[in-house]
Amino acid sequence: MSPQPSQSATASTDFRRADGRAVNELRPITITRGWSQQAEGSALIEFGGTRVLCTASVTEGVPRWMRGEGRGWVTAEYAMLPRATSTRSQRESIKGKVGGRTHEISRLIGRSLRAVIDLHALGENTVVLDCDVLQADGGTRTAAITGAYVALAEAMAWARKEGLVKGRPLTDSVAAVSVGIIDGVPMLDLPYPEDVRAETDMNVVITGSGAFVEVQGTAEGAPFNRDELDGLLDLAVEGCAELAQIQQATLGDGGHA
Amino acid sequence: MSPQPSQSATASTDFRRADGRAVNELRPITITRGWSQQAEGSALIEFGGTRVLCTASVTEGVPRWMRGEGRGWVTAEYAMLPRATSTRSQRESIKGKVGGRTHEISRLIGRSLRAVIDLHALGENTVVLDCDVLQADGGTRTAAITGAYVALAEAMAWARKEGLVKGRPLTDSVAAVSVGIIDGVPMLDLPYPEDVRAETDMNVVITGSGAFVEVQGTAEGAPFNRDELDGLLDLAVEGCAELAQIQQATLGDGGHA
Amino acid sequence: MSPQPSQSATASTDFRRADGRAVNELRPITITRGWSQQAEGSALIEFGGTRVLCTASVTEGVPRWMRGEGRGWVTAEYAMLPRATSTRSQRESIKGKVGGRTHEISRLIGRSLRAVIDLHALGENTVVLDCDVLQADGGTRTAAITGAYVALAEAMAWARKEGLVKGRPLTDSVAAVSVGIIDGVPMLDLPYPEDVRAETDMNVVITGSGAFVEVQGTAEGAPFNRDELDGLLDLAVEGCAELAQIQQATLGDGGHA
Amino acid sequence: MSPQPSQSATASTDFRRADGRAVNELRPITITRGWSQQAEGSALIEFGGTRVLCTASVTEGVPRWMRGEGRGWVTAEYAMLPRATSTRSQRESIKGKVGGRTHEISRLIGRSLRAVIDLHALGENTVVLDCDVLQADGGTRTAAITGAYVALAEAMAWARKEGLVKGRPLTDSVAAVSVGIIDGVPMLDLPYPEDVRAETDMNVVITGSGAFVEVQGTAEGAPFNRDELDGLLDLAVEGCAELAQIQQATLGDGGHA
Amino acid sequence: MSPQPSQSATASTDFRRADGRAVNELRPITITRGWSQQAEGSALIEFGGTRVLCTASVTEGVPRWMRGEGRGWVTAEYAMLPRATSTRSQRESIKGKVGGRTHEISRLIGRSLRAVIDLHALGENTVVLDCDVLQADGGTRTAAITGAYVALAEAMAWARKEGLVKGRPLTDSVAAVSVGIIDGVPMLDLPYPEDVRAETDMNVVITGSGAFVEVQGTAEGAPFNRDELDGLLDLAVEGCAELAQIQQATLGDGGHA
Amino acid sequence: MSPQPSQSATASTDFRRADGRAVNELRPITITRGWSQQAEGSALIEFGGTRVLCTASVTEGVPRWMRGEGRGWVTAEYAMLPRATSTRSQRESIKGKVGGRTHEISRLIGRSLRAVIDLHALGENTVVLDCDVLQADGGTRTAAITGAYVALAEAMAWARKEGLVKGRPLTDSVAAVSVGIIDGVPMLDLPYPEDVRAETDMNVVITGSGAFVEVQGTAEGAPFNRDELDGLLDLAVEGCAELAQIQQATLGDGGHA
Repeated sequence: MSPQPSQSATASTDFRRADGRAVNELRPITITRGWSQQAEGSALIEFGGTRVLCTASVTEGVPRWMRGEGRGWVTAEYAMLPRATSTRSQRESIKGKVGGRTHEISRLIGRSLRAVIDLHALGENTVVLDCDVLQADGGTRTAAITGAYVALAEAMAWARKEGLVKGRPLTDSVAAVSVGIIDGVPMLDLPYPEDVRAETDMNVVITGSGAFVEVQGTAEGAPFNRDELDGLLDLAVEGCAELAQIQQATLGDGGHA
Repeated sequence: MSPQPSQSATASTDFRRADGRAVNELRPITITRGWSQQAEGSALIEFGGTRVLCTASVTEGVPRWMRGEGRGWVTAEYAMLPRATSTRSQRESIKGKVGGRTHEISRLIGRSLRAVIDLHALGENTVVLDCDVLQADGGTRTAAITGAYVALAEAMAWARKEGLVKGRPLTDSVAAVSVGIIDGVPMLDLPYPEDVRAETDMNVVITGSGAFVEVQGTAEGAPFNRDELDGLLDLAVEGCAELAQIQQATLGDGGHA
Repeated sequence: MSPQPSQSATASTDFRRADGRAVNELRPITITRGWSQQAEGSALIEFGGTRVLCTASVTEGVPRWMRGEGRGWVTAEYAMLPRATSTRSQRESIKGKVGGRTHEISRLIGRSLRAVIDLHALGENTVVLDCDVLQADGGTRTAAITGAYVALAEAMAWARKEGLVKGRPLTDSVAAVSVGIIDGVPMLDLPYPEDVRAETDMNVVITGSGAFVEVQGTAEGAPFNRDELDGLLDLAVEGCAELAQIQQATLGDGGHA
Repeated sequence: MSPQPSQSATASTDFRRADGRAVNELRPITITRGWSQQAEGSALIEFGGTRVLCTASVTEGVPRWMRGEGRGWVTAEYAMLPRATSTRSQRESIKGKVGGRTHEISRLIGRSLRAVIDLHALGENTVVLDCDVLQADGGTRTAAITGAYVALAEAMAWARKEGLVKGRPLTDSVAAVSVGIIDGVPMLDLPYPEDVRAETDMNVVITGSGAFVEVQGTAEGAPFNRDELDGLLDLAVEGCAELAQIQQATLGDGGHA
Repeated sequence: MSPQPSQSATASTDFRRADGRAVNELRPITITRGWSQQAEGSALIEFGGTRVLCTASVTEGVPRWMRGEGRGWVTAEYAMLPRATSTRSQRESIKGKVGGRTHEISRLIGRSLRAVIDLHALGENTVVLDCDVLQADGGTRTAAITGAYVALAEAMAWARKEGLVKGRPLTDSVAAVSVGIIDGVPMLDLPYPEDVRAETDMNVVITGSGAFVEVQGTAEGAPFNRDELDGLLDLAVEGCAELAQIQQATLGDGGHA
Repeated sequence: MSPQPSQSATASTDFRRADGRAVNELRPITITRGWSQQAEGSALIEFGGTRVLCTASVTEGVPRWMRGEGRGWVTAEYAMLPRATSTRSQRESIKGKVGGRTHEISRLIGRSLRAVIDLHALGENTVVLDCDVLQADGGTRTAAITGAYVALAEAMAWARKEGLVKGRPLTDSVAAVSVGIIDGVPMLDLPYPEDVRAETDMNVVITGSGAFVEVQGTAEGAPFNRDELDGLLDLAVEGCAELAQIQQATLGDGGHA
């Protein structure tokens, strides 16, 4: 299932990281389904020390600009608790505005989940995915996408049981992982200490069937060449395939409800 | 340890509530110390279905208006995740302003904790207590105060170990509980379904040694008389004493570091 | 009509305060009805140097979330002119947000007035009570509640005359007063210099018939015991009874329209 | 002292308005000095039914961008209570922003007062003039300017007595009045019902010695010609001269402290 | 067409300014029609170094409060790019609020254009005039008004061609110019270096047929007398007549579509 | 200089688009250097109908959190005039907040430019790049990056001439282009009508020497496979190489000052 890694990635699999992982190894992943008694779907997801609470809220109806088109809507909001990080940051509610990073990640999560849902099959219903980072140790946006899928799958199962939704709106599963180049070595699933050192940082969102939904690569230090880009994509493909299996195991029974 | 209950409270102890509790019985209380790897002190507190993550963030220095007075500062911020409740509410960060209820509760938590800390002994350090409601089922502000004390005690232990604080700034412990009158019967620790039915709702904050820090009683329906007020206070005194014991057991070794 | 004062209160009635009052004595209270030519009801109320302009604005209809239920709505907004106080404070309109204290007091005033109005008898009409502090010398929120009642009673008389309201929505009158403990002595109706010195500060809202609507006691310094709490409540009961008489005299003819 | 009115204005002096005034007649003007016990200077000014509370707040120091230049600063803030008008308007603090009209008037008041003060003689002190409209019936900005001058003069007297200011910073007095053309007839000091009917509306700010500080004329309906402009200016000159006398009488002893 | 200049203005026509102009001479004026491919009407206007992009956006319908009255609406928004000026200023979008100056100018532009449009002939359509200052060198608001008229005329021609508007809503043309007194000499069309030195600054808005729409004169330094006011008005009348000719030449064929 | 295109891209070079371009052909590119008389560097850049005004503002000093480290700072702000697009959108200054898309693009531009500047060589100086879209027809962010580089290069030349900067802070040039898949065919530099139809949309930022700074690919419709990703990257490499030549020609003399 995992693609043949490119040479540079292969070479570095013997390399051990600060936390003892191989370069192509995910951190311990834990997904707790149904963490919330209130939401129609929920998951507490952990990528190592990163913990994100994902809830899916289903309501009948769609925003005004979509009414009468027979399609539903899926959107996401990402946020971080003020002390999720090693030093406390000010709440965005108190600043009175949502920061650029928060906006950017919320939009990314929403796009990623909409890539695997048939909005017509959803009918005129709205799903809001709230991804709140309770503890942050790198990769919060990719954990959020991966967990939000589980919450969404739960919510869709609930909606079918309630008769709100007829068919199977989910067309595939979706997961995400970060990859980066540190000291010239491409690595999978960066915790915070690696993230700050990475010359290049890339977040990749991939469906259960292996197609790309988002590729966002950024040179934080030196620009990267085509080979490095390829090496990073290989690692991401491998990581997301593993995450898809974990999602499926968590949800049981085929994975995407 | 619990005061002689007034007649009306006595009469109703045989009464069983929807969740099977006696009128003077707390919901199951769970406190998980050190839930956060990031904060100097933390506790995940549960009052039945109400779950609040409390973190204490310690920083050197105080706000500008307090500098050079040799005193520290303790403040609190309360918030609710959007889907903590049975229907989703909009994020205050997105509304662009903090609501009146949020402000009111944040101020209450801050005052309650300042009542048991000697700000001179704290030195010119600041502690921010973040109380984020992950799941809400009534009594979120009282759970927040009770949990914030545990996070604060942990943080003070940390600060002493780090040499940031010399003496023992905590002068007492503090806990809080809600009481209310439903169909004329005073009851302890109301879950949400009781809270909405209560004619009178009161939040009481009491120190470990039994003194009052805050009494906030509100007639939601019919105004209340002096006897009813006395009955409610009796129940609150009893409930807070029990919470103080749980706090002490959680913290071990005398309780207030 | 005034309850037997507890011993500690009795002992202190001989005590004279900085302004010459006895501990259980209100400041001079003046209520000017109909101060505004524009509003349906209005009162300029003075508790000593504290002056609050209260207006009641009646409009047909209710907020969207209440429509079709045959009930009206009463809400309040409290604010302070920037130079109501001894040093100027910044306008909340310029800060771009309403502060926590303002929110808290606005909500308190609204709840207090709703406790004495039958919202069904009001019909689908909305009353907004604006309480603007023109000059502040302690007890602004209690003056606001006491004055807002007079404005509301005037507005209800107007609404009946206009045929907007049929019955008598007001079920009772309501007044409020502050009490506090200074150097261990409970005192009634604190002006600003006493307020800042008080160890415990309590605002009590009581109906004309003597029932409690709101009890908000806060230990600013040392926590308080049950006896002190009882002493404060005794003083508040006495003070509110006196305020109810002044309201009645101002409104004439039974007081609550 | 009043200039020879132009022919069109003369012609219309026999004309009686809805409130019985001649076209060149001010409404009853009342100025209550020292209305506030808190501010360094204050005046409650009434132009008929328009009532504006003006306070002058003096603080040592100037905004950062002016420090060290030996000059002071005078600024103004205008606002209206929500029910100053015949229908209630939303508070700007709750809207979260100050409206264009409020900004515009605040800036006009500030400029007008700065025209009669020697900022060097003021020294590095700041005066904030708060003009809060308690009741509105047209001409609130002109009443505000006229009243703010009295508050400022009081504050300067206070500042000299306190030794904060040495010389006499006020170089002249200043007053303002509205004029407008209704049905082709220029009129002085328009109350609200005239203001809404005026084809042209002009606010004129004039010093005690008769020089122009501001001329703001707006064609609300048909544009106006040079003769109409001249007629309006004549009326305004006459009206401001009368206001200057009232200010002087109120302040006593030469008027500008 | 230009009025007989008053003596003081005459005297100063020999005077040469820093940029070589006579006191009654406009800067080079350039109007580029149809600069935008997107808007229904547009003009890039230049008064010397001042460049303002004016677009007119036509939409069917009017704001809710005007519906069903058979009238249209014209409004304007003025803004400056952050680096239009010699030092960069912060964006108002980032400050989170529109400043007083921006509000004031936007309102002035809207009023000026509404003075030459018959809102009934416009029908229930809305025109928004956006005036964005790309480069600022004094007189931005007067350039904006003058350019907005051209954009509006273009948009009206478009609307007639589209059949959205039947008659000829424009009743006249409108232009604006700044005048000021520098070292006692009245001058026309001040660039920034003159503007900052001016004792009195006046913006005058005049229709193509020579009637006044707005006169806004402000003493920045010493108050001005009636003769100076007259001298400034003379210059403005002359300048606006010239601008009206340029507008007409730009639009061709009678000027106001 | 352009890489060997992958087979799918080659196949489609014969394909003609709505505007007559080949799939690997840029729109007409125009860069007008020094458009602004005010800014230290500026360029008006046009990608077909997309026009972006880019200015570079240089100030001495850096934000507080960077002081004393001997490094400079480069940041960017992107915005769109309200009528840059075919229908008018509301100003963000009036909404009171900057939208997610604006934030995201501003951050992207900043990161892209920082990739080619040596912040130590810049010294403690700050450069703000303002990219204001005057007219939008797809690819505004990539035009902004490409134009901002020219403005930055001009500003660096100015700074060296002024002696503010010693060395040559620019280490390379940078340009950006959009690519996308429409009906299965990868295409270069999408105008708005193509952009809305694209299944996959990618923005790629590449240095003059051909290294990647940013790769942002998003599946708007169906997810994309590795071959499609490769085809898009090939086109982007080719397009950016051409843009780099145009930048160099515009700046003359080696391009990066």
